[in-house]
Amino acid sequence: MPEITLAIDAMGGDNGPSIVIEALAEYISSSKSCQFLVVGQQDIILPLLKQFQLSEHPQVKLIHADQVVEMNEKPGQALRSKPDSSMSVALQLLAKGEADAMVSGGNTGALMAKAYFQLKTLPGVLRPALMAALPNARGGRSYLLDLGANASCDSETLFQFGVMGSVAAQVIESSASPKVSLLNMGEEDIKGNDVVKNAAQRLSASEHVNYRGFIEGNHLFSGKADVIVCDGFVGNIALKSCEGLATLIVEQMKSALMSHWMYRWFFRFLQKRTQKSWEPLKPDHYNGASLIGLRGVVIKSHGSANSKAFGSAIKQAVTEAHAQLPERIKDRVESVLLEQH
Amino acid sequence: MPEITLAIDAMGGDNGPSIVIEALAEYISSSKSCQFLVVGQQDIILPLLKQFQLSEHPQVKLIHADQVVEMNEKPGQALRSKPDSSMSVALQLLAKGEADAMVSGGNTGALMAKAYFQLKTLPGVLRPALMAALPNARGGRSYLLDLGANASCDSETLFQFGVMGSVAAQVIESSASPKVSLLNMGEEDIKGNDVVKNAAQRLSASEHVNYRGFIEGNHLFSGKADVIVCDGFVGNIALKSCEGLATLIVEQMKSALMSHWMYRWFFRFLQKRTQKSWEPLKPDHYNGASLIGLRGVVIKSHGSANSKAFGSAIKQAVTEAHAQLPERIKDRVESVLLEQH
Repeated sequence: MPEITLAIDAMGGDNGPSIVIEALAEYISSSKSCQFLVVGQQDIILPLLKQFQLSEHPQVKLIHADQVVEMNEKPGQALRSKPDSSMSVALQLLAKGEADAMVSGGNTGALMAKAYFQLKTLPGVLRPALMAALPNARGGRSYLLDLGANASCDSETLFQFGVMGSVAAQVIESSASPKVSLLNMGEEDIKGNDVVKNAAQRLSASEHVNYRGFIEGNHLFSGKADVIVCDGFVGNIALKSCEGLATLIVEQMKSALMSHWMYRWFFRFLQKRTQKSWEPLKPDHYNGASLIGLRGVVIKSHGSANSKAFGSAIKQAVTEAHAQLPERIKDRVESVLLEQH
Repeated sequence: MPEITLAIDAMGGDNGPSIVIEALAEYISSSKSCQFLVVGQQDIILPLLKQFQLSEHPQVKLIHADQVVEMNEKPGQALRSKPDSSMSVALQLLAKGEADAMVSGGNTGALMAKAYFQLKTLPGVLRPALMAALPNARGGRSYLLDLGANASCDSETLFQFGVMGSVAAQVIESSASPKVSLLNMGEEDIKGNDVVKNAAQRLSASEHVNYRGFIEGNHLFSGKADVIVCDGFVGNIALKSCEGLATLIVEQMKSALMSHWMYRWFFRFLQKRTQKSWEPLKPDHYNGASLIGLRGVVIKSHGSANSKAFGSAIKQAVTEAHAQLPERIKDRVESVLLEQH
């Protein structure tokens, strides 16, 4: 396997650079197969690298970047005024071919804008999409895209998301023929708006996608589809609504369980014993959304990620870089474009 | 308080008419203030009324309807071919003023189509919307609309949903000035598509709505807004996605808890002791989505409702009928239309 070089934006995320460096140390302790270009402000990052015995490590190279994109900064502003930010410098390393993938826990809007601007889309790809893995009831993962790279999409763009998602699921999950569905407000052909109806026709007609029709929101976690396609407005709201509900349930459960010493005791006991069955559902495992359709592997780590979750994002980047996901998407999109002529 | 007459479509729902009649018996046992017109096939409904000692009850009148709209029937087909269905007959009683509200657990699409066709929208109202109450982290309820009456909406329609939802929250929750928000993929003004941006401008400019800006999906259950507005495509997917996640969580929890006798024992104990804190979160309490904007109170009970849940839908209908919600919406929409000129 060729050696992979990862560019890491060490300044992004709500929890500061320390969780990034901690994740890096953890990763390096178990794998010798990657080089890391750690991008950030030297006076902040160097002490952290020293703390984790990484400052002289052969797999790690610190690359100084003067600026930092703030988490609440407007994407357009970050794009114009921060060419020397850790985010931009890390993307530049990817664009120049000095890195095979890039990971950032920074401002999502800024990352999408900068990545689109600095890397461009693959030939024939209309728009990039943000894609994440969701746990499903069958014990596997389903991929949902777009999660917010595009506020609205035409049917051709949704069709392409189906194609790209299908390639990604094949590559990442080693699934021979991933089942692709469009997210809709009903399963019947007559349901929904013209955009999804036309996208459904396009997907049905293509030999390059195993299209299985519309699915409704209640199947997001059922495993009925391996790839679930929607525009960024819908995907963003669906995923964040689920986050909101999960938060409510966990809070209610905690307050019920913490109200009595016996519950607290039992809860700790239960936590230990059921760790195995809960483990696959934990958000840490699903950290690392892929910005696909670009000329390079760009992984967005959740802003609130801890070091374990950031580690998942690193693994996601390594997997996609090894599999040369952008190349594979490019080939498939080419075949699809040929199919139309 | 004037006496309310409710028309009940007794044939709708996945669990058959028995849960409807059981809910009715339960309601009547605790309240003498309503008359019920029970619409359905006499040979099926009469034995059930007898079973629950309601066949000769002064509050109950059976009205025969020949046809039944099936749960999986296409709305257009039901609209054209089933004028004598229990659903249509119940709506007709409402349209003729013989009932003050109508409740059905039947086919949602057919109910929306028939209600729109038989009742029409209130003067000035562009489109009806399906609205439901969600539990929130503050222990209250937030109202979400539209849940699927409209696959796409223009900004004026979203604006009107804000106005109607605001009136509904005032009337149902006795809230003086409900906080209204638009559901979007970000909270900043620049986020989202043109439809939500223009709707935001319209809502900001109106004196008749306490508009509080955009909210993201993770605030659906936080209580940050009392009324949350989106188009039916987004609302349907957001709500059903949450249903899907809740199902996954409950299944995982059950399988973890049922794997050992001690967990099972503790679970039963916990269930009893924490009933009070969980009670407000149970879906049964939130059954009864309102189809608002029409010339009459129409309540959609969930297809899978049990008798307790159907009872919640009946209560919702009584509340809205007492408060004369359609009249109140009509008045507010008139004021809003005047404001524009």
